[in-house]
Amino acid sequence: MALVYQQVEFLRKLLRAGSLSGAGRFVDKLEPAEIIDLLESVGPSEYPLLLRVLFSPGRVGAVSPLRVIPKDLLATFLERLDDRGLARLLKPLSTDDAVTVLELVGNERAPGITQLVSDPEQREQLRQALHYPPKSAGRLMNHHFLAAPESFTAQQAIELVRAPSAHAASTMSDLYTVDARGRLTGLVPFWKLVRAESEALLSGIMEPEPSHVTTSDDQELVATLAARYGFLTLPVVDAEKCLVGIVTMDDVLDVMQDKATEDLYRLQGISDGDRLGASVGASYRRRIPWMSANLVTAFLAASVVGLFEHTIAQLAVLAIFMPVVAGMGGNVGTQVLTVVTRGMALGEDRFLSVVRVLGKQLAIGVLIGASVGAMTAGAAYLWKGDPRLGVVLFLAMIINLAVAGLAGATVPTLLKALGLDPALGSGVLVTTCTDVVGFFSFLGLASLMMT
Amino acid sequence: MALVYQQVEFLRKLLRAGSLSGAGRFVDKLEPAEIIDLLESVGPSEYPLLLRVLFSPGRVGAVSPLRVIPKDLLATFLERLDDRGLARLLKPLSTDDAVTVLELVGNERAPGITQLVSDPEQREQLRQALHYPPKSAGRLMNHHFLAAPESFTAQQAIELVRAPSAHAASTMSDLYTVDARGRLTGLVPFWKLVRAESEALLSGIMEPEPSHVTTSDDQELVATLAARYGFLTLPVVDAEKCLVGIVTMDDVLDVMQDKATEDLYRLQGISDGDRLGASVGASYRRRIPWMSANLVTAFLAASVVGLFEHTIAQLAVLAIFMPVVAGMGGNVGTQVLTVVTRGMALGEDRFLSVVRVLGKQLAIGVLIGASVGAMTAGAAYLWKGDPRLGVVLFLAMIINLAVAGLAGATVPTLLKALGLDPALGSGVLVTTCTDVVGFFSFLGLASLMMT
Repeated sequence: MALVYQQVEFLRKLLRAGSLSGAGRFVDKLEPAEIIDLLESVGPSEYPLLLRVLFSPGRVGAVSPLRVIPKDLLATFLERLDDRGLARLLKPLSTDDAVTVLELVGNERAPGITQLVSDPEQREQLRQALHYPPKSAGRLMNHHFLAAPESFTAQQAIELVRAPSAHAASTMSDLYTVDARGRLTGLVPFWKLVRAESEALLSGIMEPEPSHVTTSDDQELVATLAARYGFLTLPVVDAEKCLVGIVTMDDVLDVMQDKATEDLYRLQGISDGDRLGASVGASYRRRIPWMSANLVTAFLAASVVGLFEHTIAQLAVLAIFMPVVAGMGGNVGTQVLTVVTRGMALGEDRFLSVVRVLGKQLAIGVLIGASVGAMTAGAAYLWKGDPRLGVVLFLAMIINLAVAGLAGATVPTLLKALGLDPALGSGVLVTTCTDVVGFFSFLGLASLMMT
Repeated sequence: MALVYQQVEFLRKLLRAGSLSGAGRFVDKLEPAEIIDLLESVGPSEYPLLLRVLFSPGRVGAVSPLRVIPKDLLATFLERLDDRGLARLLKPLSTDDAVTVLELVGNERAPGITQLVSDPEQREQLRQALHYPPKSAGRLMNHHFLAAPESFTAQQAIELVRAPSAHAASTMSDLYTVDARGRLTGLVPFWKLVRAESEALLSGIMEPEPSHVTTSDDQELVATLAARYGFLTLPVVDAEKCLVGIVTMDDVLDVMQDKATEDLYRLQGISDGDRLGASVGASYRRRIPWMSANLVTAFLAASVVGLFEHTIAQLAVLAIFMPVVAGMGGNVGTQVLTVVTRGMALGEDRFLSVVRVLGKQLAIGVLIGASVGAMTAGAAYLWKGDPRLGVVLFLAMIINLAVAGLAGATVPTLLKALGLDPALGSGVLVTTCTDVVGFFSFLGLASLMMT
């Protein structure tokens, strides 16, 4: 898969000769990993040219680097360009892709780069987009849509579609209709335009009151709407209901993948930037505050064990079974937590009462506790020959797994009721719960029944 | 949000009077949770009618129950219908939605229900779809696409689009072209058709060699292609390259959400059917095999502690710090595992060498181990006043977190290299690793240095 020296040299020659289209044909045949290789191999003079080749769209089969190269890696490549180079890079991009590039190089440089964009229309669109809050529909939308007054006839609309200025909107499948003040009133799918009589008014064939979002709506809301209703594109309106852009499904996919990663990470207390490609220093700095917080909760569990130091000194065998009790409790708690938070992320919790969810997880916890407790008790009796140890383990396991089921369901429910993200750090709260209860019930029962 | 008695009675009257359109307008105003209420409130005679109303598409603003009601809950409602009732329910659905319904009621009933479908074309399409393997593109595709021979003129193609038979394909934005043997050769976006001269041949305006998938391709491959290239629809061809269907992005979204849930579940050893709405018995049966396997690994950790029973009998204080060592190791291991498996799911690992990933996670583990170890050592010294305990904890923490980082990265990498799912059960493998190494290093160092 690695590129050979001759290939890199050939591309450098193409770039130096100014044959950007030849270079384009060359990079189109490469795998994403080879493109990374290339970016790391070419010299500083060819570097900005290569990025421009990669970012120039419109070649058949060409894939935007924004889609195939991981964002954090791409950011390191983009950061090496100066403001002028970045402004030139933005030129062929749609507003949403250009905004992504600006977000990758950072908020500080974005205004300066925007200033250097040569096309006044693009400059203005970028300036507006950067005014919208991060993660809003306004930043996700692009301006390549087709709109016509609803008073147009089908024939007039077709002429509009045929006009060279409409070429940029070529991937779209709908024509939006607006009233005299530019407010969104309906949509006419192209197939309807194809079928309509020439003299038919758009107001007669349009589908009125189309679904839409506003510029300030959260991108996750857009993703939810798109997923629920199966929209391929969604129009975006401003506060005055004027049509200002559209969001297409491919952008929504990115939002959904980011959301899935975010949920998974928050459950484990991992910070967003801690990706596979992050540097050692960056990962360390991001993990250390969380690990310090974890240490506090670990000492909480340790202090529970400390209450029974005297019992353990008499019965060192108890220490052997501590990992079993704590491990099984942590496992059940984390499983229940995962089921509940994922159900919340998919909106399944809207159909079930809180009491039913909690009651059910408690019941499953007791059942699993009894089964696993019986197995543990049997194994411990066979190993150590002490029937009292078996009874203590059996009872402690039921208590611990019941609490694990309850905690796994209660913690995210409470966090959600408080208006917080149900996944945020809930993993550590639940395992702290199961550790404390597990050690207390096991060692407590042991000191009552075995000493 | 709950429905009042009068509303339910009003709907029952509409259904008994056979006013399905009136009932349709009524249910369109309801929230998904209210629809569930309704399904649980109406009598057995109105029940099949209500489901038919819910599943009849085409009303503006209507949302398919397939999109908003959780699948496992919907399955319990569908199962209450007999085969004939289900066959009637399928009638207005597209093939992909009908296949989803058949999959929900189970593979045993599917052939019998298909037999009862009255429309011979739909019956044949369903029979074919059920022949494709589960989770293949063949089951995801629908047949509502428009295709024309590439020898047609633009005018002929427009007439084809205008024909009443083309109405079912109304949501599509492209016309596919095929050769004389029905093989896919290109696509013509509707906007190109609108712009073209009447006499232009499709072969002249089509975009040749369009991206496509085959009926046997995995649905996740379809999702990956759609996400990477931003396709809104993808044509599906059979083994002879003949165009047989299309996949639209809304179906792909479901596949991606299912995939995200699956990854998350496998990491925690949760089985697919264990959703928020599953019954106590079903959840219990699904969890107990995994918990039994976990018990074996917990006993493995316990047996390591068992090696040092004598040391613990002398120094019960060691038992207090066991949860700290094990907890921090498990935490780091799980975090690294999550970062690595998520990176693999998003394809980020293609850009990084295995050695670099492992080396980096090892380095971060050592760094975090030294920091957290120093904090632990300090806290333990302040609490118990024994400097040797601090030294043992410091060293054990470095060893354990280094191993945790390495195991978190190695386990999924090995599983992937073996052709297995990197997420499958890797959580328990990693924590078993960290428990065993953690207890062995901590108790081993203690028995060397403190006794």
